[in-house]
Amino acid sequence: MIQWIKEFLIGKPLKNEAIQGEKYKVMWGLPVLASDSISSVGYAGEEILITLVPVIGALSFMYLTYISLAIIALLIILTVSYSQTISEYTNGGGAYIVASDNLGHTAGVTAGTALSIDYILTVAVSISSGISQLTSAFPSLTKYHIIICIAALLFLMLGNLRGIRESSRIFSIPVYVFIFGSLIMIIWGIIKFKAGMVHPAEPMQQLKETGAVSVFLILKAFSSGCTALTGVEAVSNAVPNFKEPAAKHANKTLWILSLLVLLIFGGISVLANIYHIIPVEGKTVLNQIAFYVFGNNFMFYFYTATSILILVMAANTAYSGFPLLMSIMGRDGYVPRQFSMRGDRLSYSTGIIILSAIAGILIIVFNGDVTLLLPLYAIGAFLSFTLSQFGMFIRWKTIKGKWWRLKAFINGFGALTTAVAVLIIAFEKFAAGAWIIIIVTPILVLMFLRIKKHYVALAKQLEIKAADLKDYNILDNRYRNHVIVPIESINQSSLRALRFAKTISDNVVAFNISIDKEHANKLTEKYAMLDTDIPLIVKYSPFRKVVSPLLKFIESAEYDYKKGDMITVVLPQFIVKSWWQNIMHNNTSYFIKRDLLKHKHIVVAMMPLQLKDDNYVLRSSGPHS
Amino acid sequence: MIQWIKEFLIGKPLKNEAIQGEKYKVMWGLPVLASDSISSVGYAGEEILITLVPVIGALSFMYLTYISLAIIALLIILTVSYSQTISEYTNGGGAYIVASDNLGHTAGVTAGTALSIDYILTVAVSISSGISQLTSAFPSLTKYHIIICIAALLFLMLGNLRGIRESSRIFSIPVYVFIFGSLIMIIWGIIKFKAGMVHPAEPMQQLKETGAVSVFLILKAFSSGCTALTGVEAVSNAVPNFKEPAAKHANKTLWILSLLVLLIFGGISVLANIYHIIPVEGKTVLNQIAFYVFGNNFMFYFYTATSILILVMAANTAYSGFPLLMSIMGRDGYVPRQFSMRGDRLSYSTGIIILSAIAGILIIVFNGDVTLLLPLYAIGAFLSFTLSQFGMFIRWKTIKGKWWRLKAFINGFGALTTAVAVLIIAFEKFAAGAWIIIIVTPILVLMFLRIKKHYVALAKQLEIKAADLKDYNILDNRYRNHVIVPIESINQSSLRALRFAKTISDNVVAFNISIDKEHANKLTEKYAMLDTDIPLIVKYSPFRKVVSPLLKFIESAEYDYKKGDMITVVLPQFIVKSWWQNIMHNNTSYFIKRDLLKHKHIVVAMMPLQLKDDNYVLRSSGPHS
Repeated sequence: MIQWIKEFLIGKPLKNEAIQGEKYKVMWGLPVLASDSISSVGYAGEEILITLVPVIGALSFMYLTYISLAIIALLIILTVSYSQTISEYTNGGGAYIVASDNLGHTAGVTAGTALSIDYILTVAVSISSGISQLTSAFPSLTKYHIIICIAALLFLMLGNLRGIRESSRIFSIPVYVFIFGSLIMIIWGIIKFKAGMVHPAEPMQQLKETGAVSVFLILKAFSSGCTALTGVEAVSNAVPNFKEPAAKHANKTLWILSLLVLLIFGGISVLANIYHIIPVEGKTVLNQIAFYVFGNNFMFYFYTATSILILVMAANTAYSGFPLLMSIMGRDGYVPRQFSMRGDRLSYSTGIIILSAIAGILIIVFNGDVTLLLPLYAIGAFLSFTLSQFGMFIRWKTIKGKWWRLKAFINGFGALTTAVAVLIIAFEKFAAGAWIIIIVTPILVLMFLRIKKHYVALAKQLEIKAADLKDYNILDNRYRNHVIVPIESINQSSLRALRFAKTISDNVVAFNISIDKEHANKLTEKYAMLDTDIPLIVKYSPFRKVVSPLLKFIESAEYDYKKGDMITVVLPQFIVKSWWQNIMHNNTSYFIKRDLLKHKHIVVAMMPLQLKDDNYVLRSSGPHS
Repeated sequence: MIQWIKEFLIGKPLKNEAIQGEKYKVMWGLPVLASDSISSVGYAGEEILITLVPVIGALSFMYLTYISLAIIALLIILTVSYSQTISEYTNGGGAYIVASDNLGHTAGVTAGTALSIDYILTVAVSISSGISQLTSAFPSLTKYHIIICIAALLFLMLGNLRGIRESSRIFSIPVYVFIFGSLIMIIWGIIKFKAGMVHPAEPMQQLKETGAVSVFLILKAFSSGCTALTGVEAVSNAVPNFKEPAAKHANKTLWILSLLVLLIFGGISVLANIYHIIPVEGKTVLNQIAFYVFGNNFMFYFYTATSILILVMAANTAYSGFPLLMSIMGRDGYVPRQFSMRGDRLSYSTGIIILSAIAGILIIVFNGDVTLLLPLYAIGAFLSFTLSQFGMFIRWKTIKGKWWRLKAFINGFGALTTAVAVLIIAFEKFAAGAWIIIIVTPILVLMFLRIKKHYVALAKQLEIKAADLKDYNILDNRYRNHVIVPIESINQSSLRALRFAKTISDNVVAFNISIDKEHANKLTEKYAMLDTDIPLIVKYSPFRKVVSPLLKFIESAEYDYKKGDMITVVLPQFIVKSWWQNIMHNNTSYFIKRDLLKHKHIVVAMMPLQLKDDNYVLRSSGPHS
């Protein structure tokens, strides 16, 4: 039944060999990896204008052009840089790997942590903002805001648990629709303008300059616009998800992605400029442009609808990046190894579920409020950019090779620019919530390093050198195995346990922990009637404890246990027909097991007894064996 | 640490022998068992007036006197009846036992179920109403209503987990204070009236008659007033909690309790009558009487405060009754046996915790609203009264004996009256919520009977007749024990498991489930270097499943397993130093264990490996053995 529901939701299990079929080429890979970038492109121009317009008024449009050009330059630098990274790290070269490889483990884990925090925030922010736009279009849905957010989250989670292949199929269509819609809008908008069919609105006179152009203002606007670039790193992380030759497919995807970002971001900046769009409350810049270009008709509503959908779809890039990053960090031992295991559909299900759970908690705690979530966002992505760029810079300086000075310059310049962006974002948004990230990141880094330390220590404890193997005779170290069978009464279950005990050792003791003396006497009497040489030990437990009298007995002189010997405690387990019967059984047994296993010389053997169906037993006449 | 917190909250564990010291005589038993009755006495008169005044106006006071006399008559009948029950059932004679004994198991379980539902509702209702009165006195607390309710619930829970002795000490003082305060108020109120110091208020003219006196109205008022009697059964349930001679102490307590109910209920009816108190919104009848008698001074506020406290304390009677009832039903197998086990402080901790949990859920679901909870209340108590009375009636008819006709008449009359009360309450309150109880009660009864059936079937499956014991040679049935050791790699842990396997059987197989073929080849190579005769079996698992390839191997011709033999699977368990390391280990092992134990021929032996402290391992040089 549970199996059936599971298969209905996520599909039938896939074989290991099916992994190649799960991978994508450019066509299906692009929309998955591009949705984050493309959706942020939609509002990057707006972010720049929001920063500039209140201060320098009409001058903003001139600076919008300069800043857009600078961002496009940075985009080209990042693209070249990540293209180099993909060629260098053909097994997936996210910030985590590049930084680990060139700057050491701590830098790598820091980059990985920063990126994973940003992935989680991407999911929370993009779902919240998409659903916010939906509920502001349909105000009657406002009171269900959180529920709709969680439903969208579950939908994304299930889609991704179904595997890479299916999720790329499910979630690609809206991305392509939005891309083509945007390109048509940009071309049509420019044609309309050139043809003199539309004249720009004239609200320019109303704009007042309240301050002067300053380096700080420009940097602030630049860093706001940098959100257009988050998501560019996604391709380099996802190289293992591409069909072979993976590096080639990934590089092609990266260049197409960059070209699309350039065209859409640049095009929207141009349109904002020629139509003199000013950000106003409740209407996005994208919305206003679409209205000017298409007019109040179907195309306008259709494009607006896809622009809402693409916001939610942006979360899908994080669903591609986070589980893969965690699986790589899990393989290296910085997070629990479960993250590296593929689920039934060959997706990294642990990562997908954890991502959904944390993003869901964030949405609930921040009440799905984008304004509260946004200040936490983007620091992580840019910190990981900086570390990755700086890692590549060091790499070129170390390995040298053809054109190394140019390559090092490109990556060094990228590192510098993104580092400045990190500082500006952290400073500007500190009080609004960025402090949370500044506190949480190092704590997580320390936690991940501590986990690694545990795995290293574990490996060292378990290690046997190959040279030692030859001399390692398993039989050498043979010790005595004692068996203790705790019994409460004489019944089919306890006798079955005693019988099993006899097959594994000649040193068996039946042990009763008595709380009620009368009951103990009856037991002793009945036990005496058995034809067996196994002694019965009865110990009175004044505090109704079970394990401590047993341990006390083992350590007592009464018991001929020698250091180095093993003791096996046989515990019967009732295996029941219906789930509800479980609450009636094996509870004490659970605690006994837990406490006994704290002792290295004690093995706990659990012996199942399959209970028959109650009705069947009661219908038949005699006792069963 | 956890142990320390536990001891701080509920005290040090008590020995079995301390049980006598935990029991009470009359002095400490009375307040525990009386708090429910005494608190309901406070508002029973009010309930009668609320029913009568809107219909028959000034005539109400005459009928209040008649109905009060009828309830006092019923009180005397119930007291005589329960006194007879206590003498007949000296080991505790609640409705469950009396009904089971004389009317059969289904009737007994029904009485027990009805009573336990009512105990749960007593806790929810009395805490909600006490805290409601508190928050209406201090309106700034209103928004914390639910939190204060839960805090009061936790306080009662902890007090009762500390054991009978301590809870009776903690919670007795306010009960005695309220009893003495009420008696003083009644005496002083009558004296003041007789001395002509106060004249009754004259609002009588304002009262309008809107209907005629009808049998139905009188019965309705009577059944509302019957709440004064809930709690009378508590003493008969709690006989085992009394010091020896328990029946004598219990009987004394019952009579004192009845006398107090008679005096306080009767006295308040008299005062309501002579002062012509009319129930008004926001002021209880008790409150108005206290104001008339004491005036606006300290005594008035002090008495009002204790009347609030006693409402909360009423829950304490349920804390005495519910766990004891569940322990008796658990002993008989109608509820899981855990309910019959005494905790560290010799209290029935499972019952106390379950009672608190369900009452807490009810308070949260019903938002602590007494108006919503009250309609669910009292049906259970009166149903159990009816069954218990009817049980005693049948008993006298069967066993006869001295005065049996009189005794049977008393119990029969009690059964009839309470049965009428049940029907009236169920009919009157059906739509308001009583339907929930009418649906839930039979479901619970069926559930409890099903649990009993399971325990009976279990006992039958496990049973070995005493006559068969002599012929039961444990060694007779000796079978072969095979051992399978699943290994993932060659390390200290897996070799330790193989070594253990060798001590318990000569038929050992090392078993590897391979997901990655390269890894499997390495393992095989390394294993070949070991000096051992244990064969290594490697099976490829295309769907990454662990248990099914193992089971398939066992059933295959490749493995020389014969039906009837046992297979022991040895699973290493890592025992870690810090709790957080647990999330990294033994997860797979848990699922393997669960799935393997479904097979009756498979024993799972868990072999603990104590991991050393990470820092210690990393500081030392070589690998450890």
